[in-house]
Amino acid sequence: MYMLTTRTVVHVSISDLFAPNSIAVVGASATPGKLGNDAMVNVKEFDGPVYPVNPSGTGEVYGHEFVDSVSETDADLALCCVPGPALPDVLRECGEGGVGAAVVFSGGYAEAGPDGRELQETARRIAAEYDITILGPNTAGFILPQKRLFVSFVPGFDTIESGDVAIVAQSGGVGVTSTFQLDREGYGVAGMFGLGNRVNTDFDEIIPMLDDSEQTGAIALHIEGTEKMDLVVDAVRRAETPVVALKSGNQMPEFVSAHTAAPIQAYEQYERELTDAGGVMVSSITEMLDASRVLAKSPVPNGPNVGFVTAQAGPGIMMADYLRERGLEFPELTSETHERLDDFLLGFTYDQNPVDTGRPMPEFGDVIDAVARDENVDIVLAYEIFESSLGYPVDELERLTDDVDKPIVFTTAGPHDALARDRRRIEELGIPTFEGPERGAYAASVLWESIQ
Amino acid sequence: MYMLTTRTVVHVSISDLFAPNSIAVVGASATPGKLGNDAMVNVKEFDGPVYPVNPSGTGEVYGHEFVDSVSETDADLALCCVPGPALPDVLRECGEGGVGAAVVFSGGYAEAGPDGRELQETARRIAAEYDITILGPNTAGFILPQKRLFVSFVPGFDTIESGDVAIVAQSGGVGVTSTFQLDREGYGVAGMFGLGNRVNTDFDEIIPMLDDSEQTGAIALHIEGTEKMDLVVDAVRRAETPVVALKSGNQMPEFVSAHTAAPIQAYEQYERELTDAGGVMVSSITEMLDASRVLAKSPVPNGPNVGFVTAQAGPGIMMADYLRERGLEFPELTSETHERLDDFLLGFTYDQNPVDTGRPMPEFGDVIDAVARDENVDIVLAYEIFESSLGYPVDELERLTDDVDKPIVFTTAGPHDALARDRRRIEELGIPTFEGPERGAYAASVLWESIQ
Repeated sequence: MYMLTTRTVVHVSISDLFAPNSIAVVGASATPGKLGNDAMVNVKEFDGPVYPVNPSGTGEVYGHEFVDSVSETDADLALCCVPGPALPDVLRECGEGGVGAAVVFSGGYAEAGPDGRELQETARRIAAEYDITILGPNTAGFILPQKRLFVSFVPGFDTIESGDVAIVAQSGGVGVTSTFQLDREGYGVAGMFGLGNRVNTDFDEIIPMLDDSEQTGAIALHIEGTEKMDLVVDAVRRAETPVVALKSGNQMPEFVSAHTAAPIQAYEQYERELTDAGGVMVSSITEMLDASRVLAKSPVPNGPNVGFVTAQAGPGIMMADYLRERGLEFPELTSETHERLDDFLLGFTYDQNPVDTGRPMPEFGDVIDAVARDENVDIVLAYEIFESSLGYPVDELERLTDDVDKPIVFTTAGPHDALARDRRRIEELGIPTFEGPERGAYAASVLWESIQ
Repeated sequence: MYMLTTRTVVHVSISDLFAPNSIAVVGASATPGKLGNDAMVNVKEFDGPVYPVNPSGTGEVYGHEFVDSVSETDADLALCCVPGPALPDVLRECGEGGVGAAVVFSGGYAEAGPDGRELQETARRIAAEYDITILGPNTAGFILPQKRLFVSFVPGFDTIESGDVAIVAQSGGVGVTSTFQLDREGYGVAGMFGLGNRVNTDFDEIIPMLDDSEQTGAIALHIEGTEKMDLVVDAVRRAETPVVALKSGNQMPEFVSAHTAAPIQAYEQYERELTDAGGVMVSSITEMLDASRVLAKSPVPNGPNVGFVTAQAGPGIMMADYLRERGLEFPELTSETHERLDDFLLGFTYDQNPVDTGRPMPEFGDVIDAVARDENVDIVLAYEIFESSLGYPVDELERLTDDVDKPIVFTTAGPHDALARDRRRIEELGIPTFEGPERGAYAASVLWESIQ
C-alpha cells in the first residue's frame, strides 16, 4: 500500500519493476515502426515469458504468440503501449490480472492541461486501488542491462551493455541521450530510468532500489522539479552509493511545466540541499556521466593533494590550471620519491609536481608508480597521448592498484581505435579513464568535491 | 630578412615552410621507434622529393635513398631530428645548402636553463644570417593535410584528413591532442602548427599565412605566453578568418616557463585584447574545437534570436537554460510560422519557441524549415536523437541551406555508427553538427558571442 509520509514507503510492488518474472506488452504490434513493435524489439531480450497483448493481433511477434488480454497471462510487469484515453481500462485489467508494475509510455497527462490532469488522477487512483507501481506516464521507460530488461520503445536500447553508472532522469530524452553517450564512449549502464510525470514513482522510490544493487557504482540524477523534494533529498542522504545531480529547467518554467508537469523551483535550493546530503552537483550531461564514472570506480581520497604525471606539458599545464582554480593542491614530493625519480635517469623536463616526462616513454608507468606511492599524495592523475609502439602502462598500473588504495585518474588522448581497446584494459583494473585534458582534470576535481 | 618592428615582417622564407618543393630529414633513421624514423613515416606521404640525410645511413628508408648531407639536395625544408648540441652545425649546413625553413623537434633550449638559452640564441643568430624560418625548437612540428605535408614525429599523423579548422598551438602536446580529438570525432584539420620555443616564428607569422589559405575556415590558438603580444593581437585583428583563443598557464608559471620558455602574463590581459581584436576566448580544448568548427562553417548571424526545434524536451530545456544564461533570446514566432506549424497537425507538446515535437518524426525537417524561415530568427538550432528508421532530415536541410543564409546548428545524439555516417552528410551541406545538448548549445552561444 502506497503512503506519503515524511519518509518514503516504497510500494511492495516496486520489485515487479526491478525483478519481474514475466512481462506483458499491452498494445503490442507486429508492424515495424509502431510503438508496440519498438517495445517488443527491446523486451524480446528478456530471459523469461513475454506476452504480446492485443485482441486484434494474430500469430507471433518476435517468437511470442499474441494473447487477447493481460488476464490470460501471469505477467507481473506490463508495458502500456496504448494512447492515454485507453489507459484506465488497461490499468484495471492489469490490476485484475495481478500485474504489480506498469510502464506507461504515452503522453497527454498532467503536462498537457486540465483534461490530462484529470486522466492522470484517474490513473493514480486505479494504481492505488490495485497497488500498481507506475513508471511514467510520459516516459521512455527503463533498462537494466545486467538483467536483460530493456523496457522501452527506444530503438537501439537492446544493445546497451551493463556498466556501473545508474541514471534516473526526469526526462526520458536526457536518460536516452546519456545512455547512448556512455555507449558511444565504450561504457554500459547499471540502469536507466525515465521518470516522466511520476504519477506514483519518483526519485525517492528508485534511488533506494538502485542503491541496494551491487551492480550500481554511482547514481546520476536528472531533475527538472519534484513535489517531493524533502523525500528525494532524504533518499540521497541515505544512499551509500555516490549520487550526482543535474538540475535543469531554471530559465524556462513554462516549457518545463509542459514537459513533465514539474513544479517551478530554484536551482539554488536543490544545490544547497543535495550538496548538504552528500550529492555532487553538475551542469551538463558530460559532467554528470564523468562525475558518476569516477565516483563509481574510485576509493575515497584522504584530501585534495594531487600527484600528477604527464607525458605532455601543454595539456598538463591546462589541467594544473583547472585543478588549482578548484582548490586542489600539488604538494611537494618527498625526498624518497625524488630519489626514485632520479634513478630513472630520464632528464625530466619538469620533475616537481606535476612531473612531466616530455613524451610517452617506456618508464611512464614506473614514474606514475613512484608518484602514486608518495605519502603526500591523495589523488593520482596521469595524462598521456597514446603511441602504439608503447601502449599504455597497464602492467604497472595493475601492480599499483594491488598495493595502493588511492584514487587514480588516467587521462588519454590519441587515435580512436587505440583508445577504445586500451582504455578498456585500464578500466578493468578499476581505474577510470577520460579522454582529453579537461575531462580528466574535471574527474580529479570531483573526487575532492565529493568529500568537502 | 627578419625584422622585429611594430608590425610583423614575415620572413620571405616562410613560404618554404608552407609550400616546400622538396624536404630533407636530417638525422633520418631506418630504425623504427627512433625520432628520425617516426618523422620519415609521416614525411613519406609528401608528393615531392624527400631526402633522408644521415652520413651513417645506408640504402633506403621508406623508398628514399640516404644522402650524406643537406648540401647534396635541393631541399628547401629541413626536419632537424638531431639533439640540441648538433643543431648549430646542422643549421649552417642547411643555410649553405639553400634551405629556407627548418623544423627543430629537440628540446633543451631556452626552456631548460642558461646553457639552453645560449644554444637557442646561437640558433637564432645562424637563422638570421641565412634567413631560415625555424619552427621550434621544442616542437611537435606541423601538418597541412591538404598538401600531404606531415612534418612531425607524432605516430598516426599521416592518417589525419583535411578539414577547415587550423590549429596554432604553443604546446605541441595541445596541438596533437586537439588534432586527434577532431580526428576521433570524424573531422580533419586545415593545419596544425606547434610553435614550441618560437625562436623566430611566432603566432603573428603563422596566423596571416593560414588566414590567406582558402582551406582555412577558422584559426584556433593555444597560447601560454609570448613576448610579442601586441603583434599577435594585431595579427588576430587583421585576420579575415574567425579566430578562437585558449590561454593557459595561469596557475603554474614555473611549469610554463620550463615548458616553452613563455613569459608570465595575466589571462585578463589576453582576454581583453584578443576579444577586442575580434577573437573568441575559450576555456578548454573541446570548446576551442567546437567554437572553431561552428565559426568555420556558419554565416554571421544578425542577432541573438534563436529559433530552436527539439525532438526531446528534456535536453531542449537544458539547452534553453544554457542559452538564456548567456544572453541569447527565444523570440516569439510570427503568426505565419505558427500557421505553417499548425498545418502539420502534429499536436506539438510545446509549440512556442522552443518548438518540441516530442520525439523524432518524419516532419522534423519541415518543422525546422518553418522555424528557420521565421523573420524573427537569427540563429537556427535543432536537437534530435537519431532513430535509424527515420534518419536525419538531410533533404529538408539541403533545401533550407539553398534558400536561407542563417547559421544552423544541428545537435545530435544516439548510437555511434549512425552518428558518424549521417552527421557527415549534414556537415557536407555546410551545417556544423555537435554531439550532445551542451555542445550544441555552446556552439550556438559562440555565434552570438562572436559578433558582440
